Amino acid sequence: MGDTPVVPMNMLKSLDLIEAFYKPIAKAGVVPLSCGGDHLMTLPIMRAIARERPVGMVQFDAHTDTGDAGYGGERLHHGTPFRRAVEEGLLDPKRTIQIGIRGARASSDYSDFSHESGMRVIYIEEFFEIGVDKVIEEARRVIGDGPTYISFDVDGIDPAYTPGTGTPEIGGYTTHDAQRMLRGLRGANLVGADVVEVSPPFDPSGNTALVGATMMYEILCLLAEARTGK
Amino acid sequence: MGDTPVVPMNMLKSLDLIEAFYKPIAKAGVVPLSCGGDHLMTLPIMRAIARERPVGMVQFDAHTDTGDAGYGGERLHHGTPFRRAVEEGLLDPKRTIQIGIRGARASSDYSDFSHESGMRVIYIEEFFEIGVDKVIEEARRVIGDGPTYISFDVDGIDPAYTPGTGTPEIGGYTTHDAQRMLRGLRGANLVGADVVEVSPPFDPSGNTALVGATMMYEILCLLAEARTGK
Amino acid sequence: MGDTPVVPMNMLKSLDLIEAFYKPIAKAGVVPLSCGGDHLMTLPIMRAIARERPVGMVQFDAHTDTGDAGYGGERLHHGTPFRRAVEEGLLDPKRTIQIGIRGARASSDYSDFSHESGMRVIYIEEFFEIGVDKVIEEARRVIGDGPTYISFDVDGIDPAYTPGTGTPEIGGYTTHDAQRMLRGLRGANLVGADVVEVSPPFDPSGNTALVGATMMYEILCLLAEARTGK
Amino acid sequence: MGDTPVVPMNMLKSLDLIEAFYKPIAKAGVVPLSCGGDHLMTLPIMRAIARERPVGMVQFDAHTDTGDAGYGGERLHHGTPFRRAVEEGLLDPKRTIQIGIRGARASSDYSDFSHESGMRVIYIEEFFEIGVDKVIEEARRVIGDGPTYISFDVDGIDPAYTPGTGTPEIGGYTTHDAQRMLRGLRGANLVGADVVEVSPPFDPSGNTALVGATMMYEILCLLAEARTGK
Amino acid sequence: MGDTPVVPMNMLKSLDLIEAFYKPIAKAGVVPLSCGGDHLMTLPIMRAIARERPVGMVQFDAHTDTGDAGYGGERLHHGTPFRRAVEEGLLDPKRTIQIGIRGARASSDYSDFSHESGMRVIYIEEFFEIGVDKVIEEARRVIGDGPTYISFDVDGIDPAYTPGTGTPEIGGYTTHDAQRMLRGLRGANLVGADVVEVSPPFDPSGNTALVGATMMYEILCLLAEARTGK
Amino acid sequence: MGDTPVVPMNMLKSLDLIEAFYKPIAKAGVVPLSCGGDHLMTLPIMRAIARERPVGMVQFDAHTDTGDAGYGGERLHHGTPFRRAVEEGLLDPKRTIQIGIRGARASSDYSDFSHESGMRVIYIEEFFEIGVDKVIEEARRVIGDGPTYISFDVDGIDPAYTPGTGTPEIGGYTTHDAQRMLRGLRGANLVGADVVEVSPPFDPSGNTALVGATMMYEILCLLAEARTGK
Repeated sequence: MGDTPVVPMNMLKSLDLIEAFYKPIAKAGVVPLSCGGDHLMTLPIMRAIARERPVGMVQFDAHTDTGDAGYGGERLHHGTPFRRAVEEGLLDPKRTIQIGIRGARASSDYSDFSHESGMRVIYIEEFFEIGVDKVIEEARRVIGDGPTYISFDVDGIDPAYTPGTGTPEIGGYTTHDAQRMLRGLRGANLVGADVVEVSPPFDPSGNTALVGATMMYEILCLLAEARTGK
Repeated sequence: MGDTPVVPMNMLKSLDLIEAFYKPIAKAGVVPLSCGGDHLMTLPIMRAIARERPVGMVQFDAHTDTGDAGYGGERLHHGTPFRRAVEEGLLDPKRTIQIGIRGARASSDYSDFSHESGMRVIYIEEFFEIGVDKVIEEARRVIGDGPTYISFDVDGIDPAYTPGTGTPEIGGYTTHDAQRMLRGLRGANLVGADVVEVSPPFDPSGNTALVGATMMYEILCLLAEARTGK
Repeated sequence: MGDTPVVPMNMLKSLDLIEAFYKPIAKAGVVPLSCGGDHLMTLPIMRAIARERPVGMVQFDAHTDTGDAGYGGERLHHGTPFRRAVEEGLLDPKRTIQIGIRGARASSDYSDFSHESGMRVIYIEEFFEIGVDKVIEEARRVIGDGPTYISFDVDGIDPAYTPGTGTPEIGGYTTHDAQRMLRGLRGANLVGADVVEVSPPFDPSGNTALVGATMMYEILCLLAEARTGK
Repeated sequence: MGDTPVVPMNMLKSLDLIEAFYKPIAKAGVVPLSCGGDHLMTLPIMRAIARERPVGMVQFDAHTDTGDAGYGGERLHHGTPFRRAVEEGLLDPKRTIQIGIRGARASSDYSDFSHESGMRVIYIEEFFEIGVDKVIEEARRVIGDGPTYISFDVDGIDPAYTPGTGTPEIGGYTTHDAQRMLRGLRGANLVGADVVEVSPPFDPSGNTALVGATMMYEILCLLAEARTGK
Repeated sequence: MGDTPVVPMNMLKSLDLIEAFYKPIAKAGVVPLSCGGDHLMTLPIMRAIARERPVGMVQFDAHTDTGDAGYGGERLHHGTPFRRAVEEGLLDPKRTIQIGIRGARASSDYSDFSHESGMRVIYIEEFFEIGVDKVIEEARRVIGDGPTYISFDVDGIDPAYTPGTGTPEIGGYTTHDAQRMLRGLRGANLVGADVVEVSPPFDPSGNTALVGATMMYEILCLLAEARTGK
Repeated sequence: MGDTPVVPMNMLKSLDLIEAFYKPIAKAGVVPLSCGGDHLMTLPIMRAIARERPVGMVQFDAHTDTGDAGYGGERLHHGTPFRRAVEEGLLDPKRTIQIGIRGARASSDYSDFSHESGMRVIYIEEFFEIGVDKVIEEARRVIGDGPTYISFDVDGIDPAYTPGTGTPEIGGYTTHDAQRMLRGLRGANLVGADVVEVSPPFDPSGNTALVGATMMYEILCLLAEARTGK
C-alpha cells in the first residue's frame, strides 16, 4: 500500500487506516477537529482517542446512529457508530446527549439503544418546545466536567440550510440555533470534534459546504479557547 | 379512450376523469390522500366525495385560490377551485380556514370571495403574530366536528424550504410549523386530503419533493389514527 | 376576456386566440417568426396564414408530429399538428420534408401518416448517411418555389446541445448542422417560421435558450434577405 | 462616450457614470429605488443625492462595509462604501444603523470604523436576543426625522433564503423578519433606497431573485406611501 | 439477513449477493441486461454466467478497467474488473475489444494488462482516425461467433452527452456513434450485457439518464432479435 | 499593498500586478502556462514575455478579441487584448492565426482589425469546410519557426461542451477537435500559453472546468516535450 492514496473501496480497511492516522495525533496531545464524510468515521477516531477512558458526547443529528445490524446484516455503517462505540467502551452513554432526532423514515429500533443505554435524547419536538437555552443547559448537565467529543452531523440542521447531505429530514433547527448551541458549550472539556455528512454534489447552491465550514470555525474557536485557557 | 393513458392535454376532460376515478373510491368508504399537481385537482376530488354533504377545509396556502374568471376568462384554473367548490355546494365556507395567505403579486380580488363567503383567512402577518398554537386552536374551532378536508399547497411554506413550486411567495412558515399544525389536527373528522403544487424541476436540490412526501406522511398518520380510533 | 392577459388554461381557446392574433399580421403581408412553446402552436399560425393556399414545410424535429387521437382521445396536442394541418388543407404534404426523425419512444403510428400523405421523411440514420449537403438538396427539391414554412423544433438537435426541452431524443444533429441546413434554404419562398419546444427550466446551464435564440437569428437573416431581395 | 452602453470594465469611471445618472433624478425631486449589483454602487448614488446635507441610513447587511484600503490597496470596493460616504460628508454616522452584522470571515477592522464614527451596530447575536420589534424601535430612534436612505444587502438574510450572493454568511434573519423590519419603517423620511448583491448565477432555484424583487416591492410601498402622505 | 433490502455497505458481500442473484437467471437460460452502478458489478455477473466457458466482450469505455491493486491495495474496485475476470477464466482477452480508451488521468499501468493479455484496444485517437464502420468491422472480427458480453460504460461517450458519471474524460464519441456501433453488432452471439456508471446527481439536466436508458433500449433490441432469430 | 492578497477591484492596477508577477518568471527562462479568467489577462502576460521581440500566436476562440474602445469608451477589456498587443509591438499579426470565429452577437468591427493587420482568421464555416488537418497545416504555416504563444479561450469550443463561460456562441468545434489541433502543434517554438474564460458557476455539471483542465494538460505536454527536446 505504501504511499498510495487511500479511498474507501474497502470500508473495513478504511476504518483501520483512519484509526492508525489518529493514534499518533492523540498521543501527541492534539485535539483533532475532523470533517467528512460518512458518520461511521467517528468510530475509528474514537478508537484512537478514547481507548483509555470513555468520552461523553454532544451529538447534533437528525438520527441517533445507534442502530444495530442492518443493510444486509452489516454491523458497521453510518447508522451504527455510537452503539459500537458504547459496546467497545469508547463512549459513555450516560454522558451522551443527542439533539434534533426526528424523521419519517426512522423506526424506533434506532432509538431504543439510545434510551436503554442511558443517553439523553432530545427529539426535535422537545427542542422546539423548550428552546435553545434549555437545550444548552441540559447538554452541560449531561456532559459535566469529563472529557467530551462534539459530533456535528449537518443533517441535524433543516435541509433548507443543508440540502447537500445523504439522508435529509425536514423540520430541523436553523444554522443560527446550531451556532448558539455550539457557543453554549464554551468551557467544556473537549477532546475532539467533527462535522460530518457534508455532500456537495447534492447542493448546487454551495450553501451546505459553507454551513459545514462555518460550523468547523465555531468549533475551532471553542477548542482554541479551551487550549489557551481564555 | 379505452385503455389509453391519459395526460392533461384537455384540462376539462381531466376534471371529469379525476372525478370518475374518485367516485368508486368514495363509495367504498375510502378516505383518499392525493398528491399533485395543480391545485385545481382538488375540485373534482371534492365533486366525488362531497356531493351529498358539503365538507369543511383546512387549507395551507400562500393564496386563497378563491378567484373568479381569469387567465383569459377561464372559470376553472389553479386560482379558482374553492370559489367553484362553494358555488357547487361542495365546500362549506363557514367551516373553512386558509392559513398563510400573502404575496406581492396577489390582488384583493382573490381574497374578497373568501371574506364574503365567511371563510376564516389567516394572513401570514397574523400567523406570525398569534403563533402556531393559536392557529391550531382557531382551525379546530372553525372546522368543529363536521367532515373536513385538508388541502396542503406547498407554497404555503416559505420557498427556502420549497423552491420547487409554480407560484412561490417569500415570507412563509417553516416545515416545522407546518408539521406542528398538521399534528394539531389529530382527532378531526377527516374525509380526504391532498398535497399539491410540488414541481421538482424547479428545485435542483430535491428538497421540495422531500417536503411534499413528508407532509403526506404526517397526514397519513392522522388518517390512520382516525380510522383505527387510536 | 377583454384586456386580461391570456395564459394556456384552456388549450382549445388558446388555439383560437393565437389564430386571431396572427390573422391581421398575415393580412398585412407580414412574414411572422414565432417562438414557443408547444409544437401545437404551429397549427393556429397556419390557420391564419395558409387558409387561402396550402404551404410547404421544412420541419426540423425528432418527431413527425403527425399522430392522430391520443392522450386520452384528444385530437389536438403536440403530437398531431401536422396531420390536422394536412386534413384542414393548410399544409401540402407533397411539399413537406421532416428532418431528424428518431426515438426509442416513437411508435410507427406516428410516422405512418407522414408516409401515406406523401411527406419526405429523413430519419436520423439517413441524415448521417447522406450528410448535410444532400439533405439541403433534398429539402430544396421538395419545397420547390412554392410558399414555404420553416418549423424548427429544438428537439431535432441532440439533447447535449438542447437538454431544455420536453421530449428529448438522443442521437440528433449538432447546432452547426442545423445552422448549415438553415443557411442552405437561402432564396426559398418563405411565408413564416417558428422555433418551438424551448423549455428553460429543464436546462440549468441556459444553453438551450441560447440555441433557440440563435436559430431565430439565423431564420431572421433568411427572412430579411428574402424581403430585401438580396 | 455618447450613447454606448456602459458595463463595468473601468470601475472608477462607472462610479462617475452612476453619479451623473442620478444627479438629474435627484434634482427633479425623485426618490430613487435602485437594484444591484456590488454594494459600492450606493456610494455614487449618495454622491448624487446627499451632497447638500448628509443622510441617515438603515442598512440591512451581514457586513458593515466600512472597511478601509484593501484588496491590494484599493480604497473603493464593496467593503468600503460607507467609510467613504462618511468621509465625504454624505452619510451621518450618528444617524446610521447596521442590522445583521456577522461572519466568520470578518475581521474587527471592518467594524472598528462603524463603532468609532458612532454608528449603531446590531450584530446578529443582539438581533436574535432583542427580537424584531426592538430592532425596529432602535432603528427609528437612530434615524429620527431626518432624511434617510435604506440600503438592503440581501446577504443580511440567511443564505438558505438567498444563496445567490457573492459573500454569503450563514446564521442570518429570515425574509419574514426582513419584511417586518421594512414595514416597521413606515412614515420615515425616506430619500432613497436600494437592494444590492443579488447574483442569480449562484442560485439555480431562482429564489434569491424573487427575494430581491419582493424586498423592492416592500420598499416601493414605503416610498409610495411617503409621497402620497397616506 | 433474510429479506432485508441490501445496499452496498459491504462491497465484498455485495459481489456475492449479485452473483447469487444472477446464477438462477443464467441457469434458466435468460440473457441478462443489467444497469448500474459501479463497473465492478460486471465481475459478479460474469461469475454467474461465464464459469463454464469464458466469454468475449465488446467494451465501450474511456478506461480499460484492467488495472491491478490500487486504492490502498484493493484488488477489487471499478478499475480492475476485467483483469480479475481474465484471471478467473471468465473473460477471454483474445476475444475482447475495448473502444474509446483515453484520459489525462490514466497511467499506462491500466492498459498494460489489456495489451499483454491480447485484448484489442481502440484508443480514441484510432477511433476518430478509422471511423465507426471500421470499428464495427474490427469488433466483429475480434468476437467472432463465440459467446459475447456487451459492457457499456457511459463514460466512453463524451461528457457533453453524459456528464452524470464518476470519472468523465473529455474527447469521446457521440451518442449517435454509440448507437451505430451497437446496431453494428446485430447477429452476434450475445449472452449478456450491461450499461454502467450512470450517476444522475452529477447531471442536473437529466440527459445522462436518458442516454443510459436509450442505450439499454438499443441493446434490448439486439437481444430480442437474437432470441427470436429475426 | 504589501502582503495583502490582490483581487480585481481595480482592473488597471491588476494589469500591472500581473505583468510584474510574470517578469521574473520570463527572465528566468520559464515558459508560463496560465489559466483564467478574463481574456484581457493575456495582454499583461505578453507585456512581460514579449517586449524584446513580438510573438506569433495560435488563438482558439469564438471571438477575435481585436476590438477597439467599447463598453463606455474603455480601451482595455476582454474584447481588445490583441489589438492592444499589436499596437504595443508585442504580437506579430502576420504570425497570428485565430480559429473558430463566429457568433450572432459579433459585429464586423471586431474582425476588421484582424484582417487589416494581416492576421489569418479561420471562421467556423471554413473550419468545418476544410477540416482539422488543414487547419493544423495552416496554423503551422502562419506561425513558422518563430516564438509563439497559444491562447485557448474555451468559448472556441461549442457550449454543449463548455457552457460555463461568459460569452458562449453556439456552433463551435468539439473538445476532440481542439485536442487534435493542440497536438498538431508539436514541435512549435512555444514561449507561453493560457486557457481562459472558464467560469464554473455557469456550469452546474462541472464539465467546463474539466475541459479547461484537460486542455491545460494537453498544452503542458507540448511545453514539456519542447523543453526536453523529445
